Amino acid sequence: MSSNSSFERPALEAHSAASRERFEDLLRKFVEIPSVSNDPARKDDIHRMVDLAGSTLIDFGFESRVLKTKGNPILHGRRVVDANAPTVTIYNHLDVQPGGEASDWKTDPFVFTRDGERWYGRGATDDKGPALTALFGARYALDHGAKVNVSFLWELEEEIGSPSFEAAVRAEAGALRTDAVCVSDTIWISRERPACPAGLRGLQGFLLRLETGATDQHSGTTGGAARNPIAELMGVVCACLDPKTGKVKIPGFYEGVIPPTKEEIDGFKKSGFSVAAFKKDHKLKSLRVNDRLEVMKRIWAMPTFEVHGVTGGYTGPQIKTIVPPRGEVKCSVRLVPKQDPKKVLGKIQKFVKKVNPDVEVVPVGSLAAYRGVTTGPWADAVKDSMAFAFGRPPVFVREGGSIGAVLTMEKVLGCPIVFLGLSLPEHGYHAPNENYDWGQARGGMTAFAKFFEQAASMRGR
Amino acid sequence: MSSNSSFERPALEAHSAASRERFEDLLRKFVEIPSVSNDPARKDDIHRMVDLAGSTLIDFGFESRVLKTKGNPILHGRRVVDANAPTVTIYNHLDVQPGGEASDWKTDPFVFTRDGERWYGRGATDDKGPALTALFGARYALDHGAKVNVSFLWELEEEIGSPSFEAAVRAEAGALRTDAVCVSDTIWISRERPACPAGLRGLQGFLLRLETGATDQHSGTTGGAARNPIAELMGVVCACLDPKTGKVKIPGFYEGVIPPTKEEIDGFKKSGFSVAAFKKDHKLKSLRVNDRLEVMKRIWAMPTFEVHGVTGGYTGPQIKTIVPPRGEVKCSVRLVPKQDPKKVLGKIQKFVKKVNPDVEVVPVGSLAAYRGVTTGPWADAVKDSMAFAFGRPPVFVREGGSIGAVLTMEKVLGCPIVFLGLSLPEHGYHAPNENYDWGQARGGMTAFAKFFEQAASMRGR
Repeated sequence: MSSNSSFERPALEAHSAASRERFEDLLRKFVEIPSVSNDPARKDDIHRMVDLAGSTLIDFGFESRVLKTKGNPILHGRRVVDANAPTVTIYNHLDVQPGGEASDWKTDPFVFTRDGERWYGRGATDDKGPALTALFGARYALDHGAKVNVSFLWELEEEIGSPSFEAAVRAEAGALRTDAVCVSDTIWISRERPACPAGLRGLQGFLLRLETGATDQHSGTTGGAARNPIAELMGVVCACLDPKTGKVKIPGFYEGVIPPTKEEIDGFKKSGFSVAAFKKDHKLKSLRVNDRLEVMKRIWAMPTFEVHGVTGGYTGPQIKTIVPPRGEVKCSVRLVPKQDPKKVLGKIQKFVKKVNPDVEVVPVGSLAAYRGVTTGPWADAVKDSMAFAFGRPPVFVREGGSIGAVLTMEKVLGCPIVFLGLSLPEHGYHAPNENYDWGQARGGMTAFAKFFEQAASMRGR
Repeated sequence: MSSNSSFERPALEAHSAASRERFEDLLRKFVEIPSVSNDPARKDDIHRMVDLAGSTLIDFGFESRVLKTKGNPILHGRRVVDANAPTVTIYNHLDVQPGGEASDWKTDPFVFTRDGERWYGRGATDDKGPALTALFGARYALDHGAKVNVSFLWELEEEIGSPSFEAAVRAEAGALRTDAVCVSDTIWISRERPACPAGLRGLQGFLLRLETGATDQHSGTTGGAARNPIAELMGVVCACLDPKTGKVKIPGFYEGVIPPTKEEIDGFKKSGFSVAAFKKDHKLKSLRVNDRLEVMKRIWAMPTFEVHGVTGGYTGPQIKTIVPPRGEVKCSVRLVPKQDPKKVLGKIQKFVKKVNPDVEVVPVGSLAAYRGVTTGPWADAVKDSMAFAFGRPPVFVREGGSIGAVLTMEKVLGCPIVFLGLSLPEHGYHAPNENYDWGQARGGMTAFAKFFEQAASMRGR
């Protein structure tokens, strides 16, 4: 173990302060490439992102390799310090959500903008800022004698459910051999208290589609006899879901759901979660329920059925009195540990077929839920380094979102997966005005440096 | 009465044939102005349309006056032949529906395209083609001695429910004094059999709106506790409507509906209506019902509840796992004679408030249903002139669509309103690839010339 004064507070703080300008400059370059993975028109930007990420890894003293996949490439950065030292892999993703409605943003989503200690832009917190924070922390640890081999896995399909990740990781399992993976793509519950997920929700996306005609028709001329595909799709959604309570009515949907343990409930209670803050951070006028524990259970530990949008009819100003020829409702269900996405999809398909046999269920992306570990040396290293950097140890909560890569890495690489997330609720994950801030970057660099220092003391295999 | 050989078949046919080039040239100019009334960005085009229509009236030997309104202007064309002669007013509209999805069109909706005897372009049949057809017929009748004063009322807000029409007609009631109005804005049931509506459906448009947040939120982070406004709106629609059968479940909705009389049912049966042709013309894969008479009742004589489109969520490729902050469902109900739009709107608002008090019902346009007259000298003049021009007398059916101006003119001008429509089901009213054809234009010119000749024999007031 390379313990020395370099890993004490004054040195780490000096490093953070000295890194600020370079960090901001790099984050600007990363954010200004619109590496939107769900938009085929952004393929060139994905490749520009790969090039920039690769050259950044090299600038930081790491080898960089592009792992080709059927979809977007994966970056593998690596520095082997000592073949006998333990290896730790940091996972982040460099693809981003679409910008969304420009009018909801105060600034252009793909123009990096600073406002005091806060940086705005799509991908700032999800997940480019945390990726760079970890990189700065790793470089510092290696420069100051930490005997640990460091790998980076930077994916570019996380936002579309990691469809190519498993095959690529399987093909490269030898080169990717590691003693642990640390994922940095999760959100605290409040700035006051670091938090790590002890579980992630899974996801099954699907489109409900119905076509009853070929072109728009005058609703005066055909209305009454013509079927209305959007209305029929609404009927299907309402058969699946009580839209007010959120209760899912698909038979067997809740089968296998494990309620949170007493320990988890204790963690929830200590997490700093506040219903008022949750509403404020997410700009929600009202919720389905208002009880604090019930809200936490619903967002972390219970499955959902969500409608994301509807296409197929008239969407211009006022109304246009047409009967639309087709409709598509964009849906997903979030799943919790022990719910199998494939089985759930089967239940959805069976039920929709019964409710309206003409409606097609098109699966879009699938992620199993994940139940994480909260004890052992790697979990302790995360706890200690977060406590050191941010002044309080993290609580273990659940993450309502889904990271498909986590399950793949656990299964294929066969090692512990821990989480050192740096995003805050007010950073606007997947929302307009996404941002990241210097407080989390500074603390994050320190936490990662400390984490690598501790990793060096683990027994490599 | 100015009966002479000019109103016999050979002269009328020669006139039509000689007019073809000029007609096509004018229709091109009219169609290529995108006078879309529901789009504020098209205001300049509306005014270009007014200018062109005014100069066209003058070219045809009519005075032209622009009636200013709170909205789009109305054109009033007039030629007074003899102060003691009867006056007949032809109503058409020169505003059009939006073009719609360009990909559904074989040609640009606002580029006039000829294919054999058919002309394509938005507004070709609804209602620019019929307007010009009537103009050619009137000019011919006046040129050949018909002692009748002819007025044209060309509206530019028909497609948005004629919001300014009533005030303008009331203000100009003296100048618009007429013995009858002939409306040319309706559709036959099949090319083989002329048809006139004995009634029109009314309309009440409305938007259902719900806002539960301010910006898109990550469905992993907030899903389960956050309300889903689009799903809740779907719940409201499904409370109002059985989407499969089309049955409206709003209490009292069907109050006052008068079923069609035995005579009307007889007219329906003789109309040439065919379920197979209806499906083919409107490109409908399947219908809510398949019985011929039941289909006719549903499209002409029964009210409906239609969903036109949904805005507010994600509408890009695949899915985006957001909880949307707001949603809007664009709806309308078609109404039949004796259903009062105001009362129906009140029932909708009351019911929606009960189902989901947070949902706002925003009224958009309202038109009363109309029950027309089918007997008397003016109805006979239409029957005779259509029989003369097209070889068979028209059947009286119902029109499923709505023309708000009809009720206004009946009420304010206090005269009979008759219908001499020229559109066919295959003309694609409000649909992509809208078209008009020379057969209907040629026959229409003859029918109108004959109608004005007969009008000359009515007693003026």
